[in-house]
Amino acid sequence: MGKNIENVGTITEASPEAHPIPARAAGTAMMQGAVLYGPGDIRFEEREAPRIMKPTDAIIRISATCVCGSDLWPYRGIEPFTRPTPMGHEYVGIVEEVGSEVRTIKPGQFVVGSFVISDNTCTICQAGYPSRCVNGEFVSLTVGTQAELARIPLADGTLVATPDLPPDDLIPSLLAASDVLGTGWFAADAAAAAPGKTVVVVGDGAVGLLGVLSAKQMGAERIVMMSRHPARQQLAVEFGATDIVTERGDDGVARIKDMTDGLGAHSTIEAVGTQESTMQAINATRPGGYVGFVGVNYEVTIPGPPLFFSQIHLHGGPAPVRRYLPELIDLIWNRKINPGKVFDLTLPLDQVAEGYRAMDERRAIKALLLP
Amino acid sequence: MGKNIENVGTITEASPEAHPIPARAAGTAMMQGAVLYGPGDIRFEEREAPRIMKPTDAIIRISATCVCGSDLWPYRGIEPFTRPTPMGHEYVGIVEEVGSEVRTIKPGQFVVGSFVISDNTCTICQAGYPSRCVNGEFVSLTVGTQAELARIPLADGTLVATPDLPPDDLIPSLLAASDVLGTGWFAADAAAAAPGKTVVVVGDGAVGLLGVLSAKQMGAERIVMMSRHPARQQLAVEFGATDIVTERGDDGVARIKDMTDGLGAHSTIEAVGTQESTMQAINATRPGGYVGFVGVNYEVTIPGPPLFFSQIHLHGGPAPVRRYLPELIDLIWNRKINPGKVFDLTLPLDQVAEGYRAMDERRAIKALLLP
Repeated sequence: MGKNIENVGTITEASPEAHPIPARAAGTAMMQGAVLYGPGDIRFEEREAPRIMKPTDAIIRISATCVCGSDLWPYRGIEPFTRPTPMGHEYVGIVEEVGSEVRTIKPGQFVVGSFVISDNTCTICQAGYPSRCVNGEFVSLTVGTQAELARIPLADGTLVATPDLPPDDLIPSLLAASDVLGTGWFAADAAAAAPGKTVVVVGDGAVGLLGVLSAKQMGAERIVMMSRHPARQQLAVEFGATDIVTERGDDGVARIKDMTDGLGAHSTIEAVGTQESTMQAINATRPGGYVGFVGVNYEVTIPGPPLFFSQIHLHGGPAPVRRYLPELIDLIWNRKINPGKVFDLTLPLDQVAEGYRAMDERRAIKALLLP
Repeated sequence: MGKNIENVGTITEASPEAHPIPARAAGTAMMQGAVLYGPGDIRFEEREAPRIMKPTDAIIRISATCVCGSDLWPYRGIEPFTRPTPMGHEYVGIVEEVGSEVRTIKPGQFVVGSFVISDNTCTICQAGYPSRCVNGEFVSLTVGTQAELARIPLADGTLVATPDLPPDDLIPSLLAASDVLGTGWFAADAAAAAPGKTVVVVGDGAVGLLGVLSAKQMGAERIVMMSRHPARQQLAVEFGATDIVTERGDDGVARIKDMTDGLGAHSTIEAVGTQESTMQAINATRPGGYVGFVGVNYEVTIPGPPLFFSQIHLHGGPAPVRRYLPELIDLIWNRKINPGKVFDLTLPLDQVAEGYRAMDERRAIKALLLP
């Protein structure tokens, strides 16, 4: 997720205030972090360490972070910017310090947070959409978690502590909950995955793969992954996919129709965000069915008539991860799910640039970064 | 509704077979009916009377029919056609004859039918979408109910009989159930109108007005009609609107936000089908809210990002009226609702051309036609 929550509908560059990288002042604490300087130009460099700025803030020491598919938008130059930008919005870590008004989060806790800051108390949060909290902001625009430390605003609303310090082998899965698992889960939920349903997943990236895992957890009967990539196909099957379809576009739709008595899927997860993938998802779904779309869709336009006559339910957007975090952490903590398997590349944080390259070239599904 | 159910996503003319107006054969039974010859050119003329063609057909004698907002699309020349086209898809009437396989519908019954033929038994019908029945077809393309008689295919699935012959004063309301009430009801249902909710209605035509009535029946707390037309505003208030907003487009959205603590409506009914009305509906709805869209949207394209970041639920299309007919007939029969009030012009059927003119010029909300 890379957009300011206010900038709905317009793709604008970050405001000049969003990402200050001040000159080093005498006595200022410093840390190392990833900064994007231009298309393809990620640098790991010294930045000012974050400090408590508001009494509702927390400072966390990052235990693990990663590179998101949406980080590739600015990396590829599709989102313009005018100044160096600290990167990263997925994170788990240990609380170092909290502001004076933070009540539930305490130093020493291991925490998982969403990629959207939320107070978890406003009307919109309470209705289940912390991703559009009235006091919300995108972590990607104001924090930059591909670093040693991060300041998390509205800590009580945004962060969820694990029952105890986790064993190391759970850390990748807990990190996945911060965005890609929560996003796949939301997509499966928006697509109304449930027992007896055929769920189609368009997109074999980390989110699509975790959409498969989510649909499986929700009891879906048949889960069809649309993928041409052998390693991703295999992981999809591990996560619960019952069928793999390699055709795309209209051919992919025809294949899904063939598999469903000509009707289409009950539920489709759209986890790419292109024009083709969006129409493929809509057209592969039966009348009355559900499409959950979570691929950021900057360049998509949906023509009215095919949507009208499809009679699908369409719901998506930035995932309200915070809503699902307690349940997801519980599933991970009790080893019911292992979403951390999507990380097929682990690098020290100072090799963050290689993480971007590997994902950009589709050599890796998702790159885990360890400070 | 004016499209062949197969023609999803492409706006094509009716197939040459769809509307045969054969030369009169010796001994052929004839009737009078409305035929569109070109933009603005509706003629009431002699046509061949319909006959049972399949054993699942019924022939009904039309008691009342009307002109639909969607009839204005071909009337205005927006839907091209190459041959004279019998018009009309809303109807109530008395069954004259049934085919040999019709089981539940019997001659002499007063019946209400949907504007979409449906078997009411296929998987899609059973899931609640008779508007996309696998054996479905649009009445507008194959029947033409602005006439004395009509052949209704799949009579057992499509038609619902009233408990008895209705008193005359209920006929307009029963006719409304055939399309505009059923469509307004679907829109309110798709918009999740319910107790405690603020429902916004975009469009003050018959469907929007009956969307107000439907939202009221579903218990909505606040119902906002967006209208600049005094007579329509007044009928909206009669049907249950609590507020009238005269602003449109972005100004209309701003007004709705002002009325809802800056959040937007919980539920919005889109009953126009233009680009402006569609974006007005999406933008007036709060994150997590619901938009039910039923205005035929031939010229609309929805840009991805504002839909993505809106986080609304979007559902609509041709209303699955048949699903709602038993409940709607019951409400009308017991005089709980009076949707027939949308007919503010009643004409003898042979003056059908004046009905089109009055609606085209917005002199009438909806024209009732009596054979």
